Amino acid sequence: MPQPEGSTPAETLAAAFGARDGELAVGGVPLSALTERHGTPLYVYDAARMRASYRALAEAVAGFAGIYYSIKANPNPAVARVFVGEGAGIEIASAAEYLAARAAGAAPERILFAGPGKRPDELAHVIEHGIGEIHLECVEEIARVAAIGAALGRTVPVALRINPSAAAQGGAMRMGGKPSPFGFDEEETEAVIDAVAAQPALRLTGIHLFAGTQILDADVLAGQWLHGLRLALRAARHLGRPLETIDLGGGLGIPYFSGETALDLARLKQRVAELMTFVRAEPLIREAQVVIEPGRFLVGPAGLYAAQVLASKRSRGTRFLVLDGGMHHHLAASGNLGQVIKRDYPIVAARPGGRETAPCTVVGPLCTPLDTLARQAALPDCQAGELIAILQSGAYGLTASPVGFLSHPTPAEVLVDGGSVTEIRPRGRFEAPLGVPDIGG
Amino acid sequence: MPQPEGSTPAETLAAAFGARDGELAVGGVPLSALTERHGTPLYVYDAARMRASYRALAEAVAGFAGIYYSIKANPNPAVARVFVGEGAGIEIASAAEYLAARAAGAAPERILFAGPGKRPDELAHVIEHGIGEIHLECVEEIARVAAIGAALGRTVPVALRINPSAAAQGGAMRMGGKPSPFGFDEEETEAVIDAVAAQPALRLTGIHLFAGTQILDADVLAGQWLHGLRLALRAARHLGRPLETIDLGGGLGIPYFSGETALDLARLKQRVAELMTFVRAEPLIREAQVVIEPGRFLVGPAGLYAAQVLASKRSRGTRFLVLDGGMHHHLAASGNLGQVIKRDYPIVAARPGGRETAPCTVVGPLCTPLDTLARQAALPDCQAGELIAILQSGAYGLTASPVGFLSHPTPAEVLVDGGSVTEIRPRGRFEAPLGVPDIGG
Repeated sequence: MPQPEGSTPAETLAAAFGARDGELAVGGVPLSALTERHGTPLYVYDAARMRASYRALAEAVAGFAGIYYSIKANPNPAVARVFVGEGAGIEIASAAEYLAARAAGAAPERILFAGPGKRPDELAHVIEHGIGEIHLECVEEIARVAAIGAALGRTVPVALRINPSAAAQGGAMRMGGKPSPFGFDEEETEAVIDAVAAQPALRLTGIHLFAGTQILDADVLAGQWLHGLRLALRAARHLGRPLETIDLGGGLGIPYFSGETALDLARLKQRVAELMTFVRAEPLIREAQVVIEPGRFLVGPAGLYAAQVLASKRSRGTRFLVLDGGMHHHLAASGNLGQVIKRDYPIVAARPGGRETAPCTVVGPLCTPLDTLARQAALPDCQAGELIAILQSGAYGLTASPVGFLSHPTPAEVLVDGGSVTEIRPRGRFEAPLGVPDIGG
Repeated sequence: MPQPEGSTPAETLAAAFGARDGELAVGGVPLSALTERHGTPLYVYDAARMRASYRALAEAVAGFAGIYYSIKANPNPAVARVFVGEGAGIEIASAAEYLAARAAGAAPERILFAGPGKRPDELAHVIEHGIGEIHLECVEEIARVAAIGAALGRTVPVALRINPSAAAQGGAMRMGGKPSPFGFDEEETEAVIDAVAAQPALRLTGIHLFAGTQILDADVLAGQWLHGLRLALRAARHLGRPLETIDLGGGLGIPYFSGETALDLARLKQRVAELMTFVRAEPLIREAQVVIEPGRFLVGPAGLYAAQVLASKRSRGTRFLVLDGGMHHHLAASGNLGQVIKRDYPIVAARPGGRETAPCTVVGPLCTPLDTLARQAALPDCQAGELIAILQSGAYGLTASPVGFLSHPTPAEVLVDGGSVTEIRPRGRFEAPLGVPDIGG
């Protein structure tokens, strides 16, 4: 998208939501209309933008892979339901995510369960209620799932999660080539296949490879996928029969910081064509369902976090905006969700009003210097009562944040779908998000 | 405390809880007896150790300062009640913390409200229900509190939070001398006093200075306190009358990492004697109630986070323990609560059994490499089912963590008091900590 003259990069991202009467609007609804009704702070998601991301990706991988929404990115069932409605399966990593996936309308056989530390009670619950595939990640889990399956009289479809021997290039977090708590080392693939095959309550259906996250380069992503396909082929050869599923993981990134550009889906589509040629030439994998598991890519750009300015102040030459929202609702924006270097999320005034922007520090209401949401934001001279929006906030927002930190109420979440607004999580009032336990008199 | 021969530093810290039959015990109750009843993961707090910390500090500052428990460190009312029972006031930073303080038995006049971004509804609530003092932090807040006081017909006792002109030395986070969103710059003290004095609904009772956190050096702390006293004197001179309160903030640290040693309370007591001499010589401040606001110091060492080993695995030469607890319950231990350098919290096997220790990486169950609880832990060759304890976890634990991240159930919290065990927060089951919103059919 061309950047309008004089716009900040964040303003350009905001333009993707649209505006009405000079104010940032979501699905045509001005932000202030949403916050007047649902309060601040507030998470807002745009269903149309979710669908657009889904459809663009589905088109790029058409004929090659099916999409499973990684629900950890945003586990609100109303969000997941948008993707289920588009035909997505759901990838879960806990029993509560299973409940959320079911609440979103996902059929049990369209749910995959991954994660390095699944508790026995979680495994028993999903096996009893039905699951598409469980991704095994350690020796203990082979025995654990087999025992539960045997006790329930079920044959459990399982895949092996493999820790690849080569690292993804270009992702923010590399997940291959090094020691890892995730899955089995690629070097052990054959031995683990034998161990699983020896369990009558398990049916080995596939391979799951996850090699990176937040990958913005289509060639890096395609290279990882090719590695996954080769690994699947190796597994199928050892197994001596075709695989049913090949899960290539997620890892599709979105731009957050200056200098980052969106994943080039046209380029990805070109590379996918090459991968399809590879797959079709191999009888042991050509019938397999290839799966990708994006989360952030699908929902991240479609969400924003809105907060109200409580104070505008200067201290020793620095301008500060104090918001009523902060790191307790948006840990990632504060730079404390694993970032090595703290960079500012895109942040805008909801109503820029043609004012000049100048650098300022944006902080939340918590009584700690950790609660800093932007260090060098380009914002106009906002005053108390104005609305600020942090963009690219649809994924790893509310549920990835320490909501109980200093006991502020949980913000509402609203889903805007073509002008219709649904409150999909109610706002708390005074009470602490985890509740104030009643300890009696 | 002398370190037993062959013990790791973490084992030495664990010895402060005590042991029974070779197992870590809290208040004489073996950890496994607690987890069998309350499940894993589990937060455990030792009331006797809380009281011991409180009494040791109270003795060190006797005749000089009163103690207000900073409830943000651990807002469970049952924890706060231990300190209220010892005579502490409570420092709060949100309306829900006010509710928790009241639930803990604190009288309204023994509650102080600080924080850079107090919402109008929070201010109205505490002013209506009674508050000891509100700490003003920005120009907007002067008008806001005055308006609420006037509307309710109350004269509101307020203090000025001052951002000091000199930085604390030795604290992990320095909070002075630089631009800050907290309080008013020291340089503006006189102007702000005049602005507050002009509001008939406000009664300026004191000064609040907070200059650092996690300070382990008694001389650094005493130097900060002296700076606060001098600032209070300056304010009282401008005000032309004695101050009623002087809040010197918190900042008392506890040792987390190798090489750190506990705050020397005997040395602090010596320095406090000098401060008392200073105060007694100044009529404008010698009648003031001096307040300190520790949180971490009082409750941190008294708490542990227990989790169960789900898997023990090797990957490319590195040993991993996968626990059923992780960063979603203990963000600080994962190094993602503001730490610049990620160092391991003290971590032990509940039942070391005389086994040799060797380095290992301890991870939680979340499907992300961020969920690492220790990188070079010295632990024996623990197997699935064994209990692991992370020490120094009583402060900034559960409520400072992203409990909804991957939607695992919230752990229970238990308070052990002389052999009596009380569940002070119930454990969740499958449901997500924030709930799975019901979105209808």
